[in-house]
Amino acid sequence: MSLDLPLGFRFAGISCGIKQQADTRDISLILSDAPACAVGVYTQNQVVAAPVLACRRRTPTSQARAVVVNSGNANACTGSVGERDAQRMCALAASACGADVGEQQVLVMSTGVIGHTLPMDCIERGIQRAAEELDTSETAFLNAADGFLTTDVNRKIATRTISLDGRTVRLAGIAKGAGMIGPNMATMLCLILTDADIDPETAHRLLQPAVDRSFNSISVEGHTSTNDTVLMLANGLAAGSTSTDARGSLSAADESTFARELNDLCVELAKQIPVDGEGAAHLIEVNVSGAATQGDAETIARCVASSNLVKTAVYGNDPNWGRIVSAAGYAGPAIEMSQLQLILNNVKLFDQGEPIAFDASHASRSMRDQQTVVIELVVGSGPGKCTHWTSDLSVEYVRFNSEYTT
Amino acid sequence: MSLDLPLGFRFAGISCGIKQQADTRDISLILSDAPACAVGVYTQNQVVAAPVLACRRRTPTSQARAVVVNSGNANACTGSVGERDAQRMCALAASACGADVGEQQVLVMSTGVIGHTLPMDCIERGIQRAAEELDTSETAFLNAADGFLTTDVNRKIATRTISLDGRTVRLAGIAKGAGMIGPNMATMLCLILTDADIDPETAHRLLQPAVDRSFNSISVEGHTSTNDTVLMLANGLAAGSTSTDARGSLSAADESTFARELNDLCVELAKQIPVDGEGAAHLIEVNVSGAATQGDAETIARCVASSNLVKTAVYGNDPNWGRIVSAAGYAGPAIEMSQLQLILNNVKLFDQGEPIAFDASHASRSMRDQQTVVIELVVGSGPGKCTHWTSDLSVEYVRFNSEYTT
Repeated sequence: MSLDLPLGFRFAGISCGIKQQADTRDISLILSDAPACAVGVYTQNQVVAAPVLACRRRTPTSQARAVVVNSGNANACTGSVGERDAQRMCALAASACGADVGEQQVLVMSTGVIGHTLPMDCIERGIQRAAEELDTSETAFLNAADGFLTTDVNRKIATRTISLDGRTVRLAGIAKGAGMIGPNMATMLCLILTDADIDPETAHRLLQPAVDRSFNSISVEGHTSTNDTVLMLANGLAAGSTSTDARGSLSAADESTFARELNDLCVELAKQIPVDGEGAAHLIEVNVSGAATQGDAETIARCVASSNLVKTAVYGNDPNWGRIVSAAGYAGPAIEMSQLQLILNNVKLFDQGEPIAFDASHASRSMRDQQTVVIELVVGSGPGKCTHWTSDLSVEYVRFNSEYTT
Repeated sequence: MSLDLPLGFRFAGISCGIKQQADTRDISLILSDAPACAVGVYTQNQVVAAPVLACRRRTPTSQARAVVVNSGNANACTGSVGERDAQRMCALAASACGADVGEQQVLVMSTGVIGHTLPMDCIERGIQRAAEELDTSETAFLNAADGFLTTDVNRKIATRTISLDGRTVRLAGIAKGAGMIGPNMATMLCLILTDADIDPETAHRLLQPAVDRSFNSISVEGHTSTNDTVLMLANGLAAGSTSTDARGSLSAADESTFARELNDLCVELAKQIPVDGEGAAHLIEVNVSGAATQGDAETIARCVASSNLVKTAVYGNDPNWGRIVSAAGYAGPAIEMSQLQLILNNVKLFDQGEPIAFDASHASRSMRDQQTVVIELVVGSGPGKCTHWTSDLSVEYVRFNSEYTT
């Protein structure tokens, strides 16, 4: 694989000793060679970690230069000390990156255990060393992606190359985590980089719906973390930009192309998250259609995806339509019983409000043999539809999340 | 134990072959010697089982005579055949109970597998035999209580004896189940009987808040079943009633006494449910106070109680305050971070928005040694407070709910 990375970004990911495991990368630094537009979408939790507070204050902006990320410690529930530490990480990164980078131009993300203050001595040395290793290479990018991870098994990256009005622009995304998947581990983080030239207002208009359809449409246990953050940086350094271009303006056609590719990249990254949750055996895709509104469809899909009975049934390869249909029934939004239809891995189990005969062992085998189990639920004849992704609920998940003792 | 049962009720519980296990009671019949006031509170699920539809049509009433209950089959998602079967159960019970009992005076409850039509031949013979065994004895009452059970390990009953204005009246309750705890098993059912003399309007005014504070304040996995029903029958047959009493009128003092005892009885029954869920090792009591309103407190308590991360932490005897505090933070209602306080089994873990030092091994031992784990969460200085009960999430729960294959 050769990655076509956005131009004008440099990367580093190093190990500085925040995580207990030796030689595990826990500081990442990303530097843009020119001031970049930066926008963010943040956790809705009222218990908000210090780095999220810092990013909220600094975005949207057209002057971002760097993002510093640490894993192993979420800097959450750490009070005023935590806020000072988050600011200090920005200041350390600015001074390590060079005299032309200001503290206010640095964004910060943290993930890991809650309620412990950061080991600032490790972090100070780590940021300095990361700055020395900054590089445009693919290896440097992958190292940076690794520095985001906590209990994740797999690295989560995605890239896109798009032609906008004859010019090539690139998108690269790095993500980690799933809800709160580990013992005291918090956070879904994502950083999207592009060398397209976009103004902050447009960037935010494009990012919010992409996040809604991807990261806001996944769940493991529905536990919203204190640190969730999606940042997008656009530095406009793609080759071929001419100085006569009005800075940050995309034509309507280009904006639509960019939006489609951004959505697609976000979905690709988001789908990697639930299936990487500890002990997950299946990715469950819940497609709801026929709801009165998209909001209704989302409420129903989230309710089905959050049902432990649905999730354990999928873990057991059990085409248990009763659990799915009844979860739709208690979700809240109106459903049309007489039009209710359920298709599981292309097998129709329920139609016009009544169960229908099906080959249960065939349906069960198809669940066992596929990593992704697809639930299609028609709840009426309205225009509202959506897709939500979640993991199944396994014995290993419970074991992992209970066997840790404070 | 000797039970002081309400006067004027007769009971039976027999095995008629609906359940696969031989000699397991699966039909219960309860007969009031006089027309009784009957009110009900039913599932909010839009997918509603046929017996619930029948009960909704027949309550409130002051003319109820009998309740017929079957376990092993929920008569849910069974379409028009199911509706006819539920009516037929009422008609069969009426004719088996005697010429003075009309079909419209019989209420019906079902619990068990979803999506299968009832074996009406078994049920017809079963109702006939149950009617022959009707009796006022304690044994008959216990047999009736057993006929409610599906995957429950323990029988769930509670009684109260109250003095109302010098007269003794009695309350007896029978409950079963927890959300949807088993493979395709549906339903929380409860039947409350009293020989007090109450009119339907008063009865409903008393029952709804009692149910809200008890059965609506418990959860296992939050999956609302298609069959949930709480019925209360009041036949006015307590000794000492005089014919000059206006039928069904309680003085304000008596109503208040009755309401308190009814709440108490419902809470006693409700708390038996989550801890009897398959594989539950702990009952978790979540007390939220300081919320702006009671509704806000309930939303926060339900969110904490529904978090798989909180439930697995309790299973692992882990005083993991980060999971509890962050669950409160994403519940929705406003919380005051600076006043946030968490006490777990009398150990303070979090105060004024910051973690405090505590003896983790002592806290963990207290969780291990007690069946009930008590979480007290102060979220501000408002008047809203509530209590919610749930079970922990264990490896056994997942195994039980996934190892069944359709």
